[in-house]
Amino acid sequence: MIQQRTIAIVGLGVIGGSLARDLAARGARVMGYDRNPETVRRAVASGHVQVALDEGLTGSEAASWLIIAVPVDETARVLAAIAPSADNLSLITDVGSTKRRAVEAARELGLSRFVGSHPLAGDHRSGWSASRAGLFAAATVFLCADVDTAPEAVEHAHALWEGVGARTTVCSATEHDERMAWVSHLPHMASFAMALAIGGQGLGYGDLGPGGRDAMRLAASSPGVWRAIAMENAGAIARSVGALEAELQQLREALERGDGDELETRLALAASWQGAG
Amino acid sequence: MIQQRTIAIVGLGVIGGSLARDLAARGARVMGYDRNPETVRRAVASGHVQVALDEGLTGSEAASWLIIAVPVDETARVLAAIAPSADNLSLITDVGSTKRRAVEAARELGLSRFVGSHPLAGDHRSGWSASRAGLFAAATVFLCADVDTAPEAVEHAHALWEGVGARTTVCSATEHDERMAWVSHLPHMASFAMALAIGGQGLGYGDLGPGGRDAMRLAASSPGVWRAIAMENAGAIARSVGALEAELQQLREALERGDGDELETRLALAASWQGAG
Repeated sequence: MIQQRTIAIVGLGVIGGSLARDLAARGARVMGYDRNPETVRRAVASGHVQVALDEGLTGSEAASWLIIAVPVDETARVLAAIAPSADNLSLITDVGSTKRRAVEAARELGLSRFVGSHPLAGDHRSGWSASRAGLFAAATVFLCADVDTAPEAVEHAHALWEGVGARTTVCSATEHDERMAWVSHLPHMASFAMALAIGGQGLGYGDLGPGGRDAMRLAASSPGVWRAIAMENAGAIARSVGALEAELQQLREALERGDGDELETRLALAASWQGAG
Repeated sequence: MIQQRTIAIVGLGVIGGSLARDLAARGARVMGYDRNPETVRRAVASGHVQVALDEGLTGSEAASWLIIAVPVDETARVLAAIAPSADNLSLITDVGSTKRRAVEAARELGLSRFVGSHPLAGDHRSGWSASRAGLFAAATVFLCADVDTAPEAVEHAHALWEGVGARTTVCSATEHDERMAWVSHLPHMASFAMALAIGGQGLGYGDLGPGGRDAMRLAASSPGVWRAIAMENAGAIARSVGALEAELQQLREALERGDGDELETRLALAASWQGAG
């Protein structure tokens, strides 16, 4: 279903750029836009994008799928811009780490071919230069539709992601955002906070051992992208961060009391959780 | 200086086992003891240990270097056990993640050939089966001596670690333990706490994306080993954990207030710290 299909991608960063590479390699005709003209030039020159789109996305009405790969706080604006000429699209999707607002915006615009997507893939680096072929191989992709979504659009969303090697799973946007507050947004906030705590001591990233470096790689993620994600899911993330604070406090109090048994019980519970997979 | 040297290693886990592999490969005659007899059997059968030592370390007086690679709360006991027959040793060292208590114990025993070592290398897995050749290549190793330490012993410690490809750096045990509370012990405590917070929601390690998995690999570390480390450095770790709680609280309050500017300022500071290396 990808070969010879015309697919427009708005935003050629690490996610949009990686999709362009994979879709072009599978025979799609990829149209691409990025707010950075140099990115578009490079994507066209490398053959991963066949048609450069302008800011007005002129010509994208020839596409049958349109993928929005911009920071989550810009998704609603792009949806509004493409809504008047969306009749020929059999799938409109995005790739954002939060889904509630995008699904709501699409419903308000009457875009029944919109299905929210969130691939659990990416990179702490951002931009076209961090994009790569095969990024979505074996990745989980959440698909979020609502009652007004056309069932065929959901089928197209499965075809898109399975076509680039991912595994799709369907859930509501609300359920998605609540879950991500724990399994994705919390590790990011923890890495950012740990960087601030360690940096406050005059110690650098280079002072970490290999385990600490792995643990804090996420702190290099784009502040702008993560501001947008965090503000869209602020309530749920505040709860997950609060729960982490409470767990840290328990460990700290066990240390302050010199209660090795209590500490080890907690560490063993954590390690068994991790080992259970 | 390693070739044809006789080196005794007490504890053949991930660190001691990896040292045995590297030292044997460089022509040393390695004597090894582990409390698990099956581990000793495997280490001898694979040729990485030439001489199996019994619990009394009988025969280790023939060694010129002795390396203690046991959990940090057992190091003082091993030092006391070998002290009466330590005259021929030109180097006694350990590999623990905390250094103050080991250096103190050696001083109290009059072991002037003791130099505390801490390689910033390892694995969240433990035991001989996780040991591997080349673990210390380009790793930082802290060496901690005190005023009574024989200067020749410090030279031998440099030779040992540089011989397996590591980079040595000398500091006091107090300075070492304070620094590790931030760059190593804190990331471990944060991973353990995050595992407890996420597990408390009924979500599993397998629900994490690739970034989250990297961030939480340390939560699989041995609870017993980390209990011992944490209790030995409890005061400093309680301070680093408290600092992380304070940073998380700042992020959470910005989320609760909907203060995106404040949030982004903090995330950008964290990302620039990480990017600065």
